[in-house]
Amino acid sequence: MVFGELDFLAMLHERLAGAHDPPGVLVGVGDDAAVLACGGRELVATTDLLIDGIDFRLTECGYRLAGRKAMAKNLSDIAAMGVAPWTAFVSVGLPGGFSAEDAAQLLDGLVDTACAFGCAIAGGDTKRSPGPLIVNVALLGRSTGRPPVLRSGARPGDLLCVTGRLGGSLFGRHLTFEPRVAAGLRLNEACGVRAMIDLSDGLSSDLGRLCAASGVGAEIEAERVPVSADAERAAQDGGSALAHALNDGEDYELLCALPPENGAALAADPLLGPLVTCIGRCLMPDSGVLLRAGGATRPLEPRGFEHRFDARPGGGP
Amino acid sequence: MVFGELDFLAMLHERLAGAHDPPGVLVGVGDDAAVLACGGRELVATTDLLIDGIDFRLTECGYRLAGRKAMAKNLSDIAAMGVAPWTAFVSVGLPGGFSAEDAAQLLDGLVDTACAFGCAIAGGDTKRSPGPLIVNVALLGRSTGRPPVLRSGARPGDLLCVTGRLGGSLFGRHLTFEPRVAAGLRLNEACGVRAMIDLSDGLSSDLGRLCAASGVGAEIEAERVPVSADAERAAQDGGSALAHALNDGEDYELLCALPPENGAALAADPLLGPLVTCIGRCLMPDSGVLLRAGGATRPLEPRGFEHRFDARPGGGP
Repeated sequence: MVFGELDFLAMLHERLAGAHDPPGVLVGVGDDAAVLACGGRELVATTDLLIDGIDFRLTECGYRLAGRKAMAKNLSDIAAMGVAPWTAFVSVGLPGGFSAEDAAQLLDGLVDTACAFGCAIAGGDTKRSPGPLIVNVALLGRSTGRPPVLRSGARPGDLLCVTGRLGGSLFGRHLTFEPRVAAGLRLNEACGVRAMIDLSDGLSSDLGRLCAASGVGAEIEAERVPVSADAERAAQDGGSALAHALNDGEDYELLCALPPENGAALAADPLLGPLVTCIGRCLMPDSGVLLRAGGATRPLEPRGFEHRFDARPGGGP
Repeated sequence: MVFGELDFLAMLHERLAGAHDPPGVLVGVGDDAAVLACGGRELVATTDLLIDGIDFRLTECGYRLAGRKAMAKNLSDIAAMGVAPWTAFVSVGLPGGFSAEDAAQLLDGLVDTACAFGCAIAGGDTKRSPGPLIVNVALLGRSTGRPPVLRSGARPGDLLCVTGRLGGSLFGRHLTFEPRVAAGLRLNEACGVRAMIDLSDGLSSDLGRLCAASGVGAEIEAERVPVSADAERAAQDGGSALAHALNDGEDYELLCALPPENGAALAADPLLGPLVTCIGRCLMPDSGVLLRAGGATRPLEPRGFEHRFDARPGGGP
C-alpha cells in the first residue's frame, strides 16, 4: 500500500491533537502558515522543502531558478496570509560536484528573491547531499495592522476571486511566478477578504480546502475562470484548457473570499482591479463545490496535485 | 577544487553584506541562531537539515532516533542562546517504500522530543524524496526575561565552562543526547553567562568560534576537560581520549563564558553544579586559543568537524 503525503499529515494531526501547545500558538498545522502571537502582533510562519527531481529539474532550470522557486514558494504562503514577509531561514543540501559558480547562482536566486520582497535571510544550514540538491526555506511574516487571513473565514454569499491566470505552469511559470505579496497584503488591508489560500495544488483542490476549512459550499462559473495561455498550450496535448486551469498545480496565485459589498472596491483598486477576477461565490454548507458551465451545474472534483510516494517514479513537477 | 560548507557560508555572508534588512533583525547569519525583535521581546530562530547517510544511518538507528536527532539538534541551538523553545516547523522528504509504521516511528521521535521541551510543532511540509530520508527542522525560541546569549559577549578573564562530558558521541550519544535546554536557560538567568555556543563540531573548533566572535583568546587546562567514557572507548582505536574530547563533533553540550565572580553561584546551583565543569578562562585578544597540559602550553588547533562535499564519499557524521 502506498503511503502518501496526506496520510502522513493526517497522522501528524492525530499525533498533535493530544499535545499541549505552549502559549501563543494561535493557528498550528493546517493553514498556509502558522499564526503566532508575539508581543501584541501576529507572526506568521511557513516552511517548504524543495528537492531536485521533484520540485524542479536542476539540469533544465539551473541553480538560480531552483533557489528562486524555493524562496518564492514560501513568499506565496506568506502572501496568502495577507501579511508582510520578514525573515527567511535557508537550509541547503549541496550535491556532489557543487562548485563556486553553482553557489553564486543558487545564492542569486535565493537572495535576490528575498530582497525583492523586503525579506532578510537571517539564518540557515549547509550540508552536502549524498543525493540531489535539497533546499528548505522557513519564512516568518508579520501582520501590518490587520490580522492574518486564514482559510477558514469564508461565509455563504462571499465572492470568490483569484489573482492572475491559471493552468499550464509546467511550461515554466512554476519557476518564474511572481509571489502575490503586494496583492495579498492589499486584499487583506483594503478589501477585507475573509479567507485566502494560495493555489499550489490546483484550483479544484485548493478551493475544496478553503471550503472545507470555512464550512461553506461554492459555485464556480466556468466561463469566468481566467485561463492562461499556458493552459491553452497544455490543452494541445490533451484535456481542455479549462481543465488545466482548474486542475494544474503550482499556479501560486491567490484564491480569496470577500463580502459581496466589497466587490466594487476591489474592482476599482488600481493594483487589484486589473489582477483579480471574480469566479464565483460561496454557498451554504452542504451545497458541495460546484462548477457551472453552459447552464448546467456539476460537482467540481478535486483533481489537483498530491505527492504519492512510489507512485510517480518519474518525479515532477 | 572542493567547495565546502564554510566556503558556501562565506559566500552567503558576502552576498548578504550588501542587503538591506527589514527592521527587527538584531542578529542574522553567524550565531547559533538569529535574534529578532518582536513586540518588546526577543525571538530566536534556527534551522538544521539532516540527511540519511550524513547525519545518521537510517538502517542502523531507525526512524524514531532520526526524528529525535533532528528535533534535538535544533533544541540544542536554542539552548545555546539561553532562551525557551516555542514552536517547530518540520519538513520531511520521505524515501521510497516509506510505510505507516515508519511514519509512526518518525513522528514519535519528532513529537515526543518537541513536547518534552515544551515546544509545539506548528507547521511543516511533506514530500517524497527520490533519494534518502530528509528532515529539516526550523525552531523558534522566546526569551524569558533576559536577552538571548550570543557567541560574542565573552571578555578576558571570564571563566570557560562546559556541560556534561565530551567525546566519542559516534558510539550513540549523537542520536540520544539530551538538549541542554534547562541548563542553557539557567546559565542565562541565574549565572549571567556572557557568551554561549553548543558543541556541534567539537570543543577545539567551537571554542575557536566563540573566541573569534568575542574577540578574546582562551586557555583550556587539559586535566579539567571532562572526558566521556565514550572518548576513552574511542581512544582504543587510536588517538588519546583527550584528543577525542577536544575534537570529536556532535557532543551537543554547552560551552559558556561567565564573569569569574559568578563561578561560586554556578558551582552551588543544584542543577548546574553537578553538570558544569570549569575548563579554563578567556585571555586578552591576540593571545590565541591555548591548551595547557603537564605544565606546557601549546596552541589548540581547531580539529573539529566540517562537511566537505566530495571529500568524504563514505558519508558522516
